[in-house]
Amino acid sequence: MKIIRDIPEMGHVSCKWKRDAMTVALVPTMGALHAGHLALVQTAKAHADRVVMSIFVNPAQFGPREDLDRYPRDLERDADLARSAGIDCIYAPDPTDMYPPDFQTWIRVERVSQGLCGTSRPGHFQGVATVVAKLFNIVQPDFAVFGEKDYQQLLVIRRMVSDLHIPVRILSHPIVREPDGLAMSSRNQYLSDKERLSAASLFRSLTEAQHLFSSGERSAKRITEAVTNQILSHPYTTIDYIFLGDPNDLKPKDPLNDPSLLAVAAWVGKTRLIDNIILRLP
Amino acid sequence: MKIIRDIPEMGHVSCKWKRDAMTVALVPTMGALHAGHLALVQTAKAHADRVVMSIFVNPAQFGPREDLDRYPRDLERDADLARSAGIDCIYAPDPTDMYPPDFQTWIRVERVSQGLCGTSRPGHFQGVATVVAKLFNIVQPDFAVFGEKDYQQLLVIRRMVSDLHIPVRILSHPIVREPDGLAMSSRNQYLSDKERLSAASLFRSLTEAQHLFSSGERSAKRITEAVTNQILSHPYTTIDYIFLGDPNDLKPKDPLNDPSLLAVAAWVGKTRLIDNIILRLP
Repeated sequence: MKIIRDIPEMGHVSCKWKRDAMTVALVPTMGALHAGHLALVQTAKAHADRVVMSIFVNPAQFGPREDLDRYPRDLERDADLARSAGIDCIYAPDPTDMYPPDFQTWIRVERVSQGLCGTSRPGHFQGVATVVAKLFNIVQPDFAVFGEKDYQQLLVIRRMVSDLHIPVRILSHPIVREPDGLAMSSRNQYLSDKERLSAASLFRSLTEAQHLFSSGERSAKRITEAVTNQILSHPYTTIDYIFLGDPNDLKPKDPLNDPSLLAVAAWVGKTRLIDNIILRLP
Repeated sequence: MKIIRDIPEMGHVSCKWKRDAMTVALVPTMGALHAGHLALVQTAKAHADRVVMSIFVNPAQFGPREDLDRYPRDLERDADLARSAGIDCIYAPDPTDMYPPDFQTWIRVERVSQGLCGTSRPGHFQGVATVVAKLFNIVQPDFAVFGEKDYQQLLVIRRMVSDLHIPVRILSHPIVREPDGLAMSSRNQYLSDKERLSAASLFRSLTEAQHLFSSGERSAKRITEAVTNQILSHPYTTIDYIFLGDPNDLKPKDPLNDPSLLAVAAWVGKTRLIDNIILRLP
């Protein structure tokens, strides 16, 4: 497994594979790998002959008071995990190569970037869309795989790919969870033991919402109340947002249709966690 | 010569050429072809095995009070000219395929889009950058050729290509002029006979500025005065802007360095014309 840092070198490696009639899949990550990332790798391997994992903590998608400096970085550990998962190449560019001082081009996906995390994290999805387009142009993959935990991000990327006709097929993988239901996230390592117990309340609230929905509840207001109560009944928790609405265009709905998206963002101590579920009848 | 309107078909044709180890150049135009466009085609043919000309009057780069509806469209005449110039394929997409109702992704090149035409035509360069990125993704060219008359546009596109690592080499061609010096432009056909005479004042003002610069004048203020006087001494003329400054980052300078960019936009009657020259010592 190669670790590439240089932009042109990454292009050459990918080009060579394609000249040899091999397909390439990209798994974009910010490192701090966990089982969720490794599931993306398996999806990538199932579709393409060669798999590139990018590891890049993208400054452009962090707000000024967010955790850019604190975000866990351990390339050696990540490389070991990636190697065991059967990755062909890690692409870990340098931030100053990705954003030189005269950098000034941004991609903005307007409507699906609004609301939800777009409200709590202004500029976040512009940073995501821009870096993903850059990675696509550098790596030239046939496929790219994203996790469904970052549901709004997945919509933003699908919309960008479609609007700009980017020749990459976007694949997604369902959320991978810890035994108690907590969605895998690199940020889970910020949690103290006590906070970790409270963090499971997000998934519990989604399960409760699915129960209500299955028993015929269609009121977004009442489901929001149940989700709120479930999360706030645990210590250290604060709710950022609870969204209920259309899974395709992220428009809030009340009463709800089948299917509907329930997306939750909450703080547990100083750690912001997100989770989501598509509410649907069996 | 093929005329393609369908997005996937254009991709397939280009892919097939590349599979046969042929290089592809794109000449993006809005049609209403003139000798300036045909010079771009010759540059394209000198670099690539296959040449695609796109003909698309891009609504996204016109302001609400601009000439989108009036802009000359004559695909039959353009196809004849393109065929004679040795184009392999015209790509003429449908506006509703390029901008479906749920379209919402925009590319913004920040600094070099500001000032000059960016001030007179808000949103223009966002429309240009976005459509050029779309065309690049659809046609997948190795080269793309742009005219130097749209100097700021060329900088915007070079910047976008560099910032987003788009794997297309940008080529440019010097301004092609009428016998009296007027820069070739599809909009010249808007001019009445009398306005056409006045339109030559733009080039005359550039020539005068080059004379002053060559004789040692470095004051942007005095060169601006000379350019203004030259243009306004002709009937029907109004000045939109006169820019003197750095040819790379479009920062105004006074006194001027060698080389400097002089870029002019002026109205002749109801027609807005642009022209430019790099002032440099011999």
